[in-house]
This record gives sequence, structure tokens and C-alpha cells, in this order.
Amino acid sequence: MNDSNELTLREQVSCLREGSLTPKDILDHALSQIEKTESKIDAWQFIADKNDLEKQWSEYKLSSPALTAPGIPIGIKDTIDVAGMPAERGSTIYSGRVPSESATCVQQLSRCGLIPIGKTVTTELAYFEPGKTKNPHNPQHTPGGSSSGSAAAVATRMVPVALGSQTAASVIRPAAFCGVVGYVASRGLFSMRGVLPLALSFDALGIIAKTVDDIFHVSNILQSRNLSGSIAAIKPKTVLAIDGDDYGSVEDEMRYAFDKALDSFADAGIVVKRESIQGSSAWPQLHKDIMAYEAAMNFSHEFDTSQQQLGDAFQSLVVAGRAISMRNRFDLALVHSKAVKQFDALFDHCDAIVTPAATGAAPHGLTTTGDPAMSRPWQLVGSSQCSLPFAQSRNGMPLGIQIIGGRYGDNSLLSIAKWIQEAFSWQSPMPGFLKAKD
Amino acid sequence: MNDSNELTLREQVSCLREGSLTPKDILDHALSQIEKTESKIDAWQFIADKNDLEKQWSEYKLSSPALTAPGIPIGIKDTIDVAGMPAERGSTIYSGRVPSESATCVQQLSRCGLIPIGKTVTTELAYFEPGKTKNPHNPQHTPGGSSSGSAAAVATRMVPVALGSQTAASVIRPAAFCGVVGYVASRGLFSMRGVLPLALSFDALGIIAKTVDDIFHVSNILQSRNLSGSIAAIKPKTVLAIDGDDYGSVEDEMRYAFDKALDSFADAGIVVKRESIQGSSAWPQLHKDIMAYEAAMNFSHEFDTSQQQLGDAFQSLVVAGRAISMRNRFDLALVHSKAVKQFDALFDHCDAIVTPAATGAAPHGLTTTGDPAMSRPWQLVGSSQCSLPFAQSRNGMPLGIQIIGGRYGDNSLLSIAKWIQEAFSWQSPMPGFLKAKD
Repeated sequence: MNDSNELTLREQVSCLREGSLTPKDILDHALSQIEKTESKIDAWQFIADKNDLEKQWSEYKLSSPALTAPGIPIGIKDTIDVAGMPAERGSTIYSGRVPSESATCVQQLSRCGLIPIGKTVTTELAYFEPGKTKNPHNPQHTPGGSSSGSAAAVATRMVPVALGSQTAASVIRPAAFCGVVGYVASRGLFSMRGVLPLALSFDALGIIAKTVDDIFHVSNILQSRNLSGSIAAIKPKTVLAIDGDDYGSVEDEMRYAFDKALDSFADAGIVVKRESIQGSSAWPQLHKDIMAYEAAMNFSHEFDTSQQQLGDAFQSLVVAGRAISMRNRFDLALVHSKAVKQFDALFDHCDAIVTPAATGAAPHGLTTTGDPAMSRPWQLVGSSQCSLPFAQSRNGMPLGIQIIGGRYGDNSLLSIAKWIQEAFSWQSPMPGFLKAKD
Repeated sequence: MNDSNELTLREQVSCLREGSLTPKDILDHALSQIEKTESKIDAWQFIADKNDLEKQWSEYKLSSPALTAPGIPIGIKDTIDVAGMPAERGSTIYSGRVPSESATCVQQLSRCGLIPIGKTVTTELAYFEPGKTKNPHNPQHTPGGSSSGSAAAVATRMVPVALGSQTAASVIRPAAFCGVVGYVASRGLFSMRGVLPLALSFDALGIIAKTVDDIFHVSNILQSRNLSGSIAAIKPKTVLAIDGDDYGSVEDEMRYAFDKALDSFADAGIVVKRESIQGSSAWPQLHKDIMAYEAAMNFSHEFDTSQQQLGDAFQSLVVAGRAISMRNRFDLALVHSKAVKQFDALFDHCDAIVTPAATGAAPHGLTTTGDPAMSRPWQLVGSSQCSLPFAQSRNGMPLGIQIIGGRYGDNSLLSIAKWIQEAFSWQSPMPGFLKAKD
């Protein structure tokens, strides 16, 4: 019998179908991995009672649709409601909050047998104030955020897949920092019912897993479309390489690793165009402003009644948002539309954009979750995004590269990301700077 | 002692401040009006227990902020959560559902003393299948929908104000059909936390009241901004008059009344430009398609697990949405952006757009809620909208005129609507075709 924790979601499904593993085996392996690892990592805000889970798991049977994965445990970010589990959203304002309904995405996954085993740690209200989670590669480093626990739980093989959400950099950054694959869906692709809203214009669901293939498996269920169960790996003809200097301070070792990655792409016959997007250095601030305006609306009541329970960063966010007039908000909307149009046009002459997933590796310390600068521009325009671990820093931390697809170009993006993940030997354990597979 | 039901929200607040009415008086009057009227109209899905309300009301005291209205009862559409009250959303799928948290908008209003007295009837999941509500002007006619109960409850003076929401025509149409003032906020202006999502790109909160002034009072609270407590009435210099023929079949008496209204505007010195928006005849279908795509995502789980409990129209909506490919969705997004840009540009040469609020008066029968055609174009572009009763049909039903403001131009829109409401003698009882006040 395999230790199923070492397997991808797809492999677990195959084992279940072949009969070499039972749902109960998989649950036992997951719980034992959690028991071994959790005290060092603190990925979970809540883990369901073992007896309850065992009872639940014993009922799972293989059902016929090719998509279903009966009784495979997944992690759900604590800003996403699961009926009957606490959902405290990283804030004492919500201490003891237990929703009675699951988010639509959770309902969809549960129906296909992907069962929440617990709630993963989020930063405060999916913004900046860190939770308790440590980086699995070095517990003195941040795991990134806000989907901190989801990234750490997948990185430590406690679950094959976890859900997160991203408004600024909340999936791509923790996935990159923890050395796993992160995916953010195009804005509007998946239902956000039951997911804590932060900023309407940007909130998007994300999936964290070990492989692009697993991400597609989950995304396919969430799309509720009769797509085939697997996705083709497609080599991109042309990628637009954006070094990120227009958006933030990319660290030297990230710059070096990114350049090496581009060389590898070119060696593999991909046309790599190094470009910058005219005027896009204003995009991070534009994203910040719109996010502040909308967060101020969404958390107006918390701010007015429980301000003391909000962290400094969150209070500043609401204050900044309230200072933006409706007239200014309209002006931001106009510039926003132009940015989206400019972004869409990029795909007339490339298949994907590649860029560092973060400014560097996970920084030392647990007081911040790192810099979101490399994600803001892509979240601004509502793109689909996927980050892949591709190198390691001098101090042994993962570095992530980000592949950006067009709006609603999610399946094309995942095909390209799958090709890239399979073409290069970037899977953990970190192999140092990338090289093509033989 | 006045019968407070005859008073506007503003007047009730004044009486409370002067001491000529107590919160308890206002509650008693509201409950007695409901007792007299509800059996004929069926505006409510749920009315809170009288004893509970009395206990609650006896605790209200005047607090200092100018905005607060201590203990004034309001109605909340049944798609908007109020903690501890059923929220069944017009669907048997949600029978017995009682949320434990209030929507942000409800929290904001409650904090300022506007207290939910109950839940108003909605169509099925805020879409087309009618609820039980009848039109207060003739119970054999539809009240419009989906915010059916909110419009009927305000029209019959059971509450001075009620909340609704609009994705297609769900506030403007019932307000017009019931002869009250309806307002839809610019998309993204108010928090939608706790409001059932139907289609992300269009969902917006709405307010129904007897006067524009009352609507501003409530909107001011929801904006959470330190605006002054009242709004100036501003006469528009130029309005763009759009007859609606590009979007649907406007009935003769609506066309006649609308023409008369434009004459009155011109007589009052307003420049009335009769125009059409090039290419905008495609906007209603564009709105339909995007709405179907997004509704299919949001109600994927209900469709997959409880299809038989969904009405035919809703099932068709999900089926239509699932038939739209991601590639098509992207194409729709491109056309959508162009429409928004074209709409924004209209305000370079007008202060507001005026157009019929519906194709005619409320149709006979309770099996449909009427035609949403006159609202789809404006909801598509995320505009602010206000409908005012302005005439009556031959059979004595109200006709509504719609004033459309720019995106985030809500306060300017409300100023103009206030001027129009005050300049012409259009208030109920319906005075026949409008004429300027002396």
C-alpha cells in the first residue's frame, strides 16, 4: 500500500479506482501526516473531528462520473464557508462563527467527493496581518498570504489540494513561497457565493496543488462544464517575458533565476519576447486604490463597530478607501478599463506572459507575508494566473515563476503551465536552477 | 398624533426628534397598517413577532448623529440576509433557511436605527418566477419583480423604505409598477455581502421609498461617508431622452406619457435631446447572455442537485449559461467594455438620461412580473438609476419614468431626481398626466 500523501490527487483517484487504496486509507494517511507535521507548520485553523471524518469517509463509494474523487481530503481557506465548521476569517471579530451553509465552490467539490478536512489559516480578513502559519521550507520564514495555510498544507503533503482566494497576491505569493503550484481563476469564472468578499472588482477563487493536472481536475469541477477529465500539455509558441521592475523591487537572485528560466524557454524553441507594458507601472497603485475603496464598503460595519479589533493595516485600508470620493472612483474605473483593454491586446502576439511570481523568496520573519507587488497588475486586469516552483534561493527557499493567461483563457493557461511543469525538472525537492528534463 | 404611515422617513425622523412621535408609535402604526393591508397585497414573506419588535422598539433612543432614525421599520427583500429571520429567497430549496448573520447593508442601517420589521417577497432567486405579491393599485396585476414585496410594502405605506436588489430590472420595474420611487446604486457602490448573488457583473443594491429625499437618507448611510444629511435638488441643464424602442416594445400610452413628460421638461427650460445610442439595440441580449453565464456558475449546485425545485425559467437560465463557452464569455466581455465606454461618453453632453422605466404599466395577471427590457441596457453598464411615478395608464395603473445617471454619479442623479420629483405634481395619488406645479 502506497503512502497516499506522496501521491497527487490524480494518482489518489487512480488508486481508488484500481482498489489499491480505499477512502479510509487516504483519510488515515492525511490525518497521520497532519499529526506529524502540523505542530511545526500551523497550517490549520480547524481540523474536523477524526471520528466524524471516519464516519463520513466510510460512506464514500466510487461513483461513476470520471471527475469524481470519492473521499479525498482537501483544505479550505478560512475565508470560505464550510457548513458546520468554524470560519473565523483570521479576525477575533468572527471568533466562534460557524456558518450553516457551505460556499458554492465547496458544495461543488463535496458533491464530487473532495471533502473538506478542515479550514486553513488565513491572514486577517484575507488582507495583510499574518496568521500563525510558518513556511514549511523554513519555519522562520513567512509562508506568504493570505492563503497561508492552504499553501503550507499542500507543501507538506497534508492534503493534495486546497482552496484559496486572491484579491491582490493571496494565492500566487503563498504558493510561490511554499514551493507549490498556485492558480487564480479569471475574475468571474467561478462562483464567489460563500467566500468572504474583500474587493468586488478583484476577488477571485484560487486552487493550490502539487501539479497543474490536479489544479485542472478541481477547476473542471468548479466550471461545471462537461469538459474532458484531463487537459492537454501545450507548448507555447511565444511568451511575453516581463521582469517585474515596473511593479516592485525584484531581488537579484529572482532576477537571475528568471533570466535562466527564459534561457531555458528559448532553448526549448519558445519565442521569448522581453517587453514591458507601456504605462503599466501605474497599475499596482491603481489596484491598491480600487481595492481600498471596495474594502472600505465591505468592512464598513466592522470598522464602525469593532475598529479596535482590526489590525493597523486593515484600519488604514478602510481609512484610505473612505478618502476616495465617488468622482475619484469613477476616474479609477476609467483608467482600470484602459488597463484591461491594453492587457487583452497583449494576447494578440503571445500565448502567455511569464514573470516572477514574487519579488524573491519568502522573506525571513513572520510579521509580514511579503510583497504583493508582482501580483497586483495581473489581479487588476482579472487575468488567469498560475505560479510554478522553478528554482531555489541561496538559503534554500523556493522561487516561483508566474504564467499569466488571458481573461477566460484559463484552460489555455493551464495547458501551457502543464507543459512547462512537465518539460522542466522543477518539482520538489528543489533542484536548484532549472534545467530541461532529458 | 399623526398617523406616521402617511409620513416619509424624513418626516418620521423629524417627529421623533421633536417628540411628537415615539419609536413605539411608529411601530404600532406600521403594524396596524400591515394588519389592515397585508391580506390583500401579500407583500411579506415574514413579519417579525410583534412582542419581539415591541421589546426591541422600546429600547430605541434618539442618538446624536444627524443620520440616525431610531426605531423606524424597514422592509428587507428576502434575498438579503437578516440575522434570525428566515431568508428563503423565493425558492423551496431554501425552505426554513434562517441565516445567523445580517448582510452588511442591513447591519449599516440597523446601526442607524432603521430596523428590519420583516422580509419582503421576492421572485424565485431574484429571477422571473413570481411570488405571491399583488399590485396595490389592482390586485389582479403584477407588482413587478423581483423586489415585488419591497415595492408593494412601500406603496401601501406599511414601511417608508425597503431594500431590494437588481440584476436586470428588479427594483426599477416593481417601483414603477407600484407607483413608488426606486433607486439602483451604481454597481460596486454598496457592499453586496449577505445579498444572494445572481450575476456578479450586474448585481446591485436598490432602495424603494416614497421620495427621493428618503432614498438619499438611506443611501447616505450605506455610503458610510460623512456627507451632509440631505441632498440639494438640482435642475438638469440637458437630458438625453431615449424612447426605449431600441430595447423593447414600448406601449402606446407609455410613449404618449413619456412624450408629455419631455414637453414638460422643455417647458421648464431643460434642453431635451431626443437621441438613440448607436448599436445599443444589442445591449439587452448582451446583458441576458452575461447574466445567464454568471447565474449558471452561482446556481450550479442547485441545478445539479435540486433541478426539479427550480422553475422552468430558472432552469432555462442555467442551461443557457452553460452553453456559453469561455471563449464566448471573453467575447461578451469585450463588447461589454465597449458598451460601458460608449455609455460613459454620453455624460459629456448631458446631465442625465431619461427613458420609460418599463414598457408600460403593470400588466394584468400574476404569472409574470412584466418585461425587463427597459432596464437591461442600464444595468449592463453599471449605471445609477432612479424611477419616479409620473402618470397613470387608462386603467388607473402607475407609469414610471426613469432617470439614469453615470457610474458613481449617484448623488448627482439623486439631486436631479429630487428636483424632478419636487418640480412636478407627480406624487400619489396619481394625478393623470403630469403638469408642472404652480
